[in-house]
Amino acid sequence: MTKPKLKKGLVQVYTGNGKGKTSAAFGLALRAIGRGLKVYIIQFIKGGFDYGELYVVDKLPNLKLKAFGQGKFVTQFPPSKKDVEIAKEALELAKKIVKSGEYDIVILDEINVAMSLRLIKTEEVVNMIKEKPKNVELVLTGRYAPKEIIDIADLVTEMKEIKHPFQKGISPRKGIEF
Amino acid sequence: MTKPKLKKGLVQVYTGNGKGKTSAAFGLALRAIGRGLKVYIIQFIKGGFDYGELYVVDKLPNLKLKAFGQGKFVTQFPPSKKDVEIAKEALELAKKIVKSGEYDIVILDEINVAMSLRLIKTEEVVNMIKEKPKNVELVLTGRYAPKEIIDIADLVTEMKEIKHPFQKGISPRKGIEF
Repeated sequence: MTKPKLKKGLVQVYTGNGKGKTSAAFGLALRAIGRGLKVYIIQFIKGGFDYGELYVVDKLPNLKLKAFGQGKFVTQFPPSKKDVEIAKEALELAKKIVKSGEYDIVILDEINVAMSLRLIKTEEVVNMIKEKPKNVELVLTGRYAPKEIIDIADLVTEMKEIKHPFQKGISPRKGIEF
Repeated sequence: MTKPKLKKGLVQVYTGNGKGKTSAAFGLALRAIGRGLKVYIIQFIKGGFDYGELYVVDKLPNLKLKAFGQGKFVTQFPPSKKDVEIAKEALELAKKIVKSGEYDIVILDEINVAMSLRLIKTEEVVNMIKEKPKNVELVLTGRYAPKEIIDIADLVTEMKEIKHPFQKGISPRKGIEF
Protein backbone atom coordinates (compact mmCIF):
# COMPACT_ATOMS: atom_id res chain seq x y z
CA MET A 1 0.00 0.00 0.00
CA THR A 2 1.28 3.43 -0.86
CA LYS A 3 1.33 6.08 1.81
CA PRO A 4 -0.07 9.21 0.24
CA LYS A 5 0.23 12.48 2.03
CA LEU A 6 -2.33 15.17 1.48
CA LYS A 7 -1.36 17.79 -1.03
CA LYS A 8 -3.92 20.21 0.25
CA GLY A 9 -5.51 19.94 3.67
CA LEU A 10 -8.92 21.50 4.06
CA VAL A 11 -11.04 22.51 7.02
CA GLN A 12 -14.10 20.38 7.74
CA VAL A 13 -16.83 21.23 10.24
CA TYR A 14 -19.50 18.88 11.59
CA THR A 15 -22.08 20.76 13.58
CA GLY A 16 -25.80 20.74 14.36
CA ASN A 17 -27.98 19.12 17.01
CA GLY A 18 -28.18 15.62 15.52
CA LYS A 19 -26.30 12.42 16.40
CA GLY A 20 -23.31 11.58 14.23
CA LYS A 21 -20.79 14.42 14.50
CA THR A 22 -18.11 12.72 16.58
CA SER A 23 -18.87 9.40 14.89
CA ALA A 24 -18.33 10.99 11.48
CA ALA A 25 -14.95 12.29 12.64
CA PHE A 26 -13.92 8.86 13.92
CA GLY A 27 -15.14 7.20 10.72
CA LEU A 28 -13.09 9.70 8.77
CA ALA A 29 -10.07 8.84 10.93
CA LEU A 30 -10.59 5.17 10.15
CA ARG A 31 -10.65 5.82 6.40
CA ALA A 32 -7.54 7.99 6.65
CA ILE A 33 -5.46 5.47 8.58
CA GLY A 34 -6.58 2.86 6.06
CA ARG A 35 -4.62 4.98 3.57
CA GLY A 36 -1.60 5.30 5.82
CA LEU A 37 -2.35 8.86 6.88
CA LYS A 38 -1.56 9.94 10.44
CA VAL A 39 -4.39 11.23 12.60
CA TYR A 40 -4.40 13.08 15.92
CA ILE A 41 -7.69 13.45 17.78
CA ILE A 42 -7.93 16.08 20.52
CA GLN A 43 -11.14 15.99 22.49
CA PHE A 44 -12.33 19.15 24.19
CA ILE A 45 -14.65 18.84 27.21
CA LYS A 46 -15.09 15.06 26.80
CA GLY A 47 -12.13 13.98 28.93
CA GLY A 48 -12.94 11.72 31.87
CA PHE A 49 -16.06 10.35 30.24
CA ASP A 50 -16.24 6.66 29.37
CA TYR A 51 -16.66 6.24 25.60
CA GLY A 52 -16.55 2.97 23.70
CA GLU A 53 -14.21 4.27 21.02
CA LEU A 54 -11.48 4.84 23.61
CA TYR A 55 -11.10 1.07 24.01
CA VAL A 56 -10.21 0.51 20.38
CA VAL A 57 -8.21 3.61 19.44
CA ASP A 58 -4.99 2.26 20.97
CA LYS A 59 -5.17 -0.78 18.72
CA LEU A 60 -5.14 1.32 15.56
CA PRO A 61 -1.93 2.35 13.85
CA ASN A 62 -1.18 6.03 13.17
CA LEU A 63 -3.98 7.21 15.43
CA LYS A 64 -3.39 9.22 18.56
CA LEU A 65 -6.03 10.58 20.92
CA LYS A 66 -5.90 12.90 23.89
CA ALA A 67 -9.03 13.88 25.80
CA PHE A 68 -9.34 16.97 27.98
CA GLY A 69 -12.03 17.65 30.54
CA GLN A 70 -13.20 16.94 34.03
CA GLY A 71 -15.59 14.10 33.27
CA LYS A 72 -18.66 16.23 33.67
CA PHE A 73 -20.62 18.54 31.43
CA VAL A 74 -19.79 22.21 31.53
CA THR A 75 -23.12 23.79 32.37
CA GLN A 76 -22.06 26.80 34.38
CA PHE A 77 -21.86 30.15 32.64
CA PRO A 78 -19.45 31.82 32.88
CA PRO A 79 -17.49 28.53 33.05
CA SER A 80 -15.26 27.74 36.02
CA LYS A 81 -11.62 28.77 36.02
CA LYS A 82 -10.62 25.11 36.00
CA ASP A 83 -12.68 24.34 32.88
CA VAL A 84 -11.18 27.33 31.09
CA GLU A 85 -7.70 26.22 32.08
CA ILE A 86 -8.23 22.68 30.76
CA ALA A 87 -9.72 23.89 27.49
CA LYS A 88 -6.79 26.25 27.01
CA GLU A 89 -4.42 23.36 27.55
CA ALA A 90 -6.29 21.42 24.86
CA LEU A 91 -6.04 24.36 22.48
CA GLU A 92 -2.32 24.76 23.15
CA LEU A 93 -1.78 21.09 22.28
CA ALA A 94 -3.91 21.52 19.15
CA LYS A 95 -1.84 24.49 18.01
CA LYS A 96 1.38 22.56 18.60
CA ILE A 97 0.21 19.45 16.75
CA VAL A 98 -1.22 21.42 13.83
CA LYS A 99 1.89 23.57 13.50
CA SER A 100 4.22 20.56 13.58
CA GLY A 101 2.71 19.27 10.34
CA GLU A 102 3.45 15.75 11.52
CA TYR A 103 -0.16 14.64 11.33
CA ASP A 104 -2.15 14.65 8.10
CA ILE A 105 -5.43 15.10 9.94
CA VAL A 106 -6.07 16.80 13.24
CA ILE A 107 -9.54 16.25 14.66
CA LEU A 108 -10.69 18.80 17.22
CA ASP A 109 -13.66 17.03 18.75
CA GLU A 110 -16.23 19.30 20.44
CA ILE A 111 -14.10 22.37 19.88
CA ASN A 112 -17.21 24.18 18.58
CA VAL A 113 -18.86 23.69 21.95
CA ALA A 114 -15.73 24.90 23.72
CA MET A 115 -15.90 28.11 21.66
CA SER A 116 -19.61 28.61 22.21
CA LEU A 117 -19.16 28.17 25.98
CA ARG A 118 -16.36 30.76 25.81
CA LEU A 119 -13.88 28.25 27.21
CA ILE A 120 -11.59 29.29 24.37
CA LYS A 121 -11.63 32.26 22.04
CA THR A 122 -12.99 31.76 18.54
CA GLU A 123 -10.41 34.25 17.32
CA GLU A 124 -7.58 32.00 18.50
CA VAL A 125 -9.05 29.05 16.63
CA VAL A 126 -9.49 31.16 13.50
CA ASN A 127 -5.85 32.16 13.72
CA MET A 128 -4.75 28.55 14.16
CA ILE A 129 -6.71 27.69 11.01
CA LYS A 130 -5.24 30.56 9.03
CA GLU A 131 -1.70 29.66 10.05
CA LYS A 132 -1.96 25.90 9.57
CA PRO A 133 0.51 24.13 7.27
CA LYS A 134 -0.99 23.60 3.82
CA ASN A 135 -0.93 19.80 4.03
CA VAL A 136 -2.83 19.50 7.32
CA GLU A 137 -6.55 18.68 7.27
CA LEU A 138 -8.55 20.02 10.20
CA VAL A 139 -11.84 18.55 11.38
CA LEU A 140 -13.86 20.53 13.90
CA THR A 141 -16.89 18.98 15.54
CA GLY A 142 -19.61 20.00 17.97
CA ARG A 143 -22.84 21.93 18.11
CA TYR A 144 -23.00 25.66 17.78
CA ALA A 145 -20.09 26.18 15.37
CA PRO A 146 -19.49 29.95 15.40
CA LYS A 147 -20.14 31.89 12.21
CA GLU A 148 -16.45 32.81 11.93
CA ILE A 149 -15.61 29.09 11.75
CA ILE A 150 -18.34 28.32 9.19
CA ASP A 151 -17.04 31.19 7.07
CA ILE A 152 -13.46 29.98 7.03
CA ALA A 153 -14.28 26.25 6.56
CA ASP A 154 -14.15 24.46 3.21
CA LEU A 155 -16.68 21.80 4.14
CA VAL A 156 -19.56 22.15 6.55
CA THR A 157 -22.17 19.52 7.29
CA GLU A 158 -25.03 20.28 9.63
CA MET A 159 -26.21 17.16 11.41
CA LYS A 160 -29.87 17.89 11.89
CA GLU A 161 -31.90 15.94 14.40
CA ILE A 162 -35.07 14.70 12.77
CA LYS A 163 -35.84 12.04 15.37
CA HIS A 164 -33.97 10.90 18.48
CA PRO A 165 -34.74 8.08 20.91
CA PHE A 166 -34.07 10.40 23.87
CA GLN A 167 -37.28 12.14 22.79
CA LYS A 168 -39.05 8.88 23.60
CA GLY A 169 -37.33 8.62 26.98
CA ILE A 170 -34.83 5.95 25.97
CA SER A 171 -31.60 6.28 27.98
CA PRO A 172 -28.10 6.35 26.45
CA ARG A 173 -26.93 2.81 25.70
CA LYS A 174 -23.39 1.48 26.20
CA GLY A 175 -21.76 0.79 22.84
CA ILE A 176 -24.20 3.00 20.95
CA GLU A 177 -24.54 6.40 22.57
CA PHE A 178 -21.34 6.14 24.60
CA MET B 1 -13.83 -5.24 29.89
CA THR B 2 -17.38 -6.53 30.12
CA LYS B 3 -19.15 -7.51 26.94
CA PRO B 4 -22.59 -5.99 27.10
CA LYS B 5 -25.21 -7.00 24.63
CA LEU B 6 -27.90 -4.59 23.64
CA LYS B 7 -31.15 -5.01 25.47
CA LYS B 8 -33.07 -3.09 22.90
CA GLY B 9 -31.82 -2.51 19.40
CA LEU B 10 -33.17 0.53 17.62
CA VAL B 11 -33.24 1.68 14.02
CA GLN B 12 -30.96 4.57 13.07
CA VAL B 13 -31.04 6.43 9.76
CA TYR B 14 -28.36 8.79 8.41
CA THR B 15 -29.56 10.57 5.32
CA GLY B 16 -29.28 13.93 3.55
CA ASN B 17 -26.95 15.38 0.94
CA GLY B 18 -24.02 16.24 3.24
CA LYS B 19 -20.73 14.43 3.86
CA GLY B 20 -20.58 12.23 6.94
CA LYS B 21 -23.25 9.52 6.61
CA THR B 22 -21.05 6.51 5.95
CA SER B 23 -18.34 7.94 8.20
CA ALA B 24 -20.85 8.25 11.04
CA ALA B 25 -21.80 4.60 10.57
CA PHE B 26 -18.15 3.52 10.66
CA GLY B 27 -17.48 5.69 13.70
CA LEU B 28 -20.45 4.09 15.38
CA ALA B 29 -19.04 0.65 14.50
CA LEU B 30 -15.74 1.63 16.10
CA ARG B 31 -17.44 2.67 19.32
CA ALA B 32 -19.48 -0.52 19.39
CA ILE B 33 -16.55 -2.87 18.92
CA GLY B 34 -14.76 -0.92 21.64
CA ARG B 35 -17.52 -2.25 23.88
CA GLY B 36 -17.21 -5.79 22.59
CA LEU B 37 -20.31 -5.62 20.43
CA LYS B 38 -20.35 -7.45 17.10
CA VAL B 39 -20.94 -5.42 13.94
CA TYR B 40 -21.75 -6.47 10.37
CA ILE B 41 -21.53 -3.87 7.62
CA ILE B 42 -23.25 -4.58 4.32
CA GLN B 43 -22.57 -2.04 1.60
CA PHE B 44 -25.10 -1.60 -1.17
CA ILE B 45 -23.90 -0.19 -4.52
CA LYS B 46 -20.39 0.58 -3.21
CA GLY B 47 -18.79 -2.77 -4.04
CA GLY B 48 -15.78 -2.63 -6.34
CA PHE B 49 -14.88 0.91 -5.33
CA ASP B 50 -11.61 1.58 -3.55
CA TYR B 51 -12.29 3.07 -0.11
CA GLY B 52 -9.68 3.72 2.57
CA GLU B 53 -11.74 2.14 5.34
CA LEU B 54 -11.57 -1.23 3.58
CA TYR B 55 -7.86 -1.44 4.37
CA VAL B 56 -8.36 -1.25 8.11
CA VAL B 57 -11.61 -3.13 8.69
CA ASP B 58 -9.93 -6.53 8.58
CA LYS B 59 -7.65 -5.54 11.43
CA LEU B 60 -10.56 -4.82 13.75
CA PRO B 61 -12.09 -7.50 15.96
CA ASN B 62 -15.81 -8.29 15.77
CA LEU B 63 -16.27 -6.31 12.59
CA LYS B 64 -17.31 -7.89 9.32
CA LEU B 65 -17.90 -6.11 6.02
CA LYS B 66 -19.27 -7.22 2.69
CA ALA B 67 -19.63 -4.84 -0.23
CA PHE B 68 -21.93 -5.37 -3.18
CA GLY B 69 -21.83 -3.55 -6.50
CA GLN B 70 -20.15 -3.35 -9.84
CA GLY B 71 -17.62 -0.64 -9.04
CA LYS B 72 -19.51 2.04 -10.87
CA PHE B 73 -22.34 4.36 -10.03
CA VAL B 74 -25.83 3.28 -10.89
CA THR B 75 -27.05 6.13 -13.05
CA GLN B 76 -29.38 4.34 -15.42
CA PHE B 77 -33.08 4.39 -14.69
CA PRO B 78 -34.65 1.91 -14.67
CA PRO B 79 -31.48 0.23 -13.37
CA SER B 80 -29.90 -2.68 -15.23
CA LYS B 81 -30.93 -6.25 -14.49
CA LYS B 82 -27.45 -6.96 -13.16
CA ASP B 83 -27.56 -4.06 -10.69
CA VAL B 84 -30.96 -5.21 -9.43
CA GLU B 85 -29.65 -8.73 -9.04
CA ILE B 86 -26.64 -7.62 -7.01
CA ALA B 87 -28.71 -5.36 -4.76
CA LYS B 88 -31.14 -8.21 -4.15
CA GLU B 89 -28.24 -10.42 -3.16
CA ALA B 90 -27.13 -7.75 -0.68
CA LEU B 91 -30.64 -7.53 0.75
CA GLU B 92 -30.87 -11.32 1.09
CA LEU B 93 -27.61 -11.34 3.07
CA ALA B 94 -28.90 -8.45 5.20
CA LYS B 95 -32.09 -10.34 6.01
CA LYS B 96 -30.13 -13.44 6.95
CA ILE B 97 -27.64 -11.59 9.17
CA VAL B 98 -30.35 -9.54 10.88
CA LYS B 99 -32.56 -12.58 11.48
CA SER B 100 -29.67 -14.62 12.89
CA GLY B 101 -29.36 -12.19 15.81
CA GLU B 102 -25.64 -12.98 15.90
CA TYR B 103 -24.60 -9.38 15.36
CA ASP B 104 -25.51 -6.57 17.74
CA ILE B 105 -25.38 -3.96 15.01
CA VAL B 106 -26.06 -4.39 11.32
CA ILE B 107 -25.08 -1.42 9.18
CA LEU B 108 -26.76 -1.22 5.78
CA ASP B 109 -24.61 1.34 4.04
CA GLU B 110 -26.25 3.17 1.10
CA ILE B 111 -29.40 1.06 1.38
CA ASN B 112 -31.45 4.27 1.19
CA VAL B 113 -30.01 4.96 -2.24
CA ALA B 114 -30.70 1.37 -3.30
CA MET B 115 -34.35 1.88 -2.35
CA SER B 116 -34.62 5.24 -4.05
CA LEU B 117 -33.14 3.79 -7.27
CA ARG B 118 -35.70 0.97 -7.03
CA LEU B 119 -32.93 -1.62 -6.89
CA ILE B 120 -34.75 -3.10 -3.93
CA LYS B 121 -38.27 -2.64 -2.63
CA THR B 122 -38.77 -0.31 0.34
CA GLU B 123 -41.54 -2.62 1.50
CA GLU B 124 -39.09 -5.50 1.85
CA VAL B 125 -36.76 -3.35 3.95
CA VAL B 126 -39.68 -2.22 6.13
CA ASN B 127 -40.63 -5.86 6.67
CA MET B 128 -37.06 -6.76 7.59
CA ILE B 129 -37.09 -3.95 10.16
CA LYS B 130 -40.45 -5.03 11.59
CA GLU B 131 -39.33 -8.63 11.93
CA LYS B 132 -35.85 -7.98 13.35
CA PRO B 133 -34.85 -9.58 16.64
CA LYS B 134 -35.33 -7.17 19.54
CA ASN B 135 -31.62 -6.99 20.41
CA VAL B 136 -30.38 -6.06 16.93
CA GLU B 137 -29.56 -2.42 16.14
CA LEU B 138 -29.97 -1.41 12.50
CA VAL B 139 -28.19 1.52 10.89
CA LEU B 140 -29.35 2.62 7.44
CA THR B 141 -27.36 5.18 5.50
CA GLY B 142 -27.62 7.03 2.21
CA ARG B 143 -29.37 9.96 0.61
CA TYR B 144 -33.05 9.92 -0.15
CA ALA B 145 -34.26 7.76 2.75
CA PRO B 146 -37.88 6.93 1.85
CA LYS B 147 -40.64 8.28 4.05
CA GLU B 148 -41.64 4.76 5.12
CA ILE B 149 -38.14 4.28 6.55
CA ILE B 150 -38.11 7.65 8.34
CA ASP B 151 -41.49 6.79 9.85
CA ILE B 152 -40.37 3.45 11.26
CA ALA B 153 -36.93 4.64 12.47
CA ASP B 154 -36.16 5.57 16.08
CA LEU B 155 -33.33 7.93 15.24
CA VAL B 156 -32.95 10.01 12.10
CA THR B 157 -30.18 12.50 11.41
CA GLU B 158 -30.20 14.53 8.25
CA MET B 159 -26.68 15.40 7.14
CA LYS B 160 -27.22 18.70 5.46
CA GLU B 161 -24.61 20.11 3.11
CA ILE B 162 -23.86 23.69 4.04
CA LYS B 163 -20.55 23.88 2.17
CA HIS B 164 -18.60 21.30 0.17
CA PRO B 165 -15.19 21.57 -1.50
CA PHE B 166 -16.58 19.93 -4.66
CA GLN B 167 -18.52 23.18 -5.07
CA LYS B 168 -15.15 24.88 -5.42
CA GLY B 169 -13.96 22.32 -7.95
CA ILE B 170 -11.70 20.40 -5.57
CA SER B 171 -11.49 16.73 -6.59
CA PRO B 172 -12.02 13.79 -4.19
CA ARG B 173 -8.86 13.11 -2.20
CA LYS B 174 -7.47 9.70 -1.28
CA GLY B 175 -7.78 9.13 2.45
CA ILE B 176 -10.42 11.81 2.90
CA GLU B 177 -13.20 11.45 0.36
CA PHE B 178 -12.39 7.82 -0.50
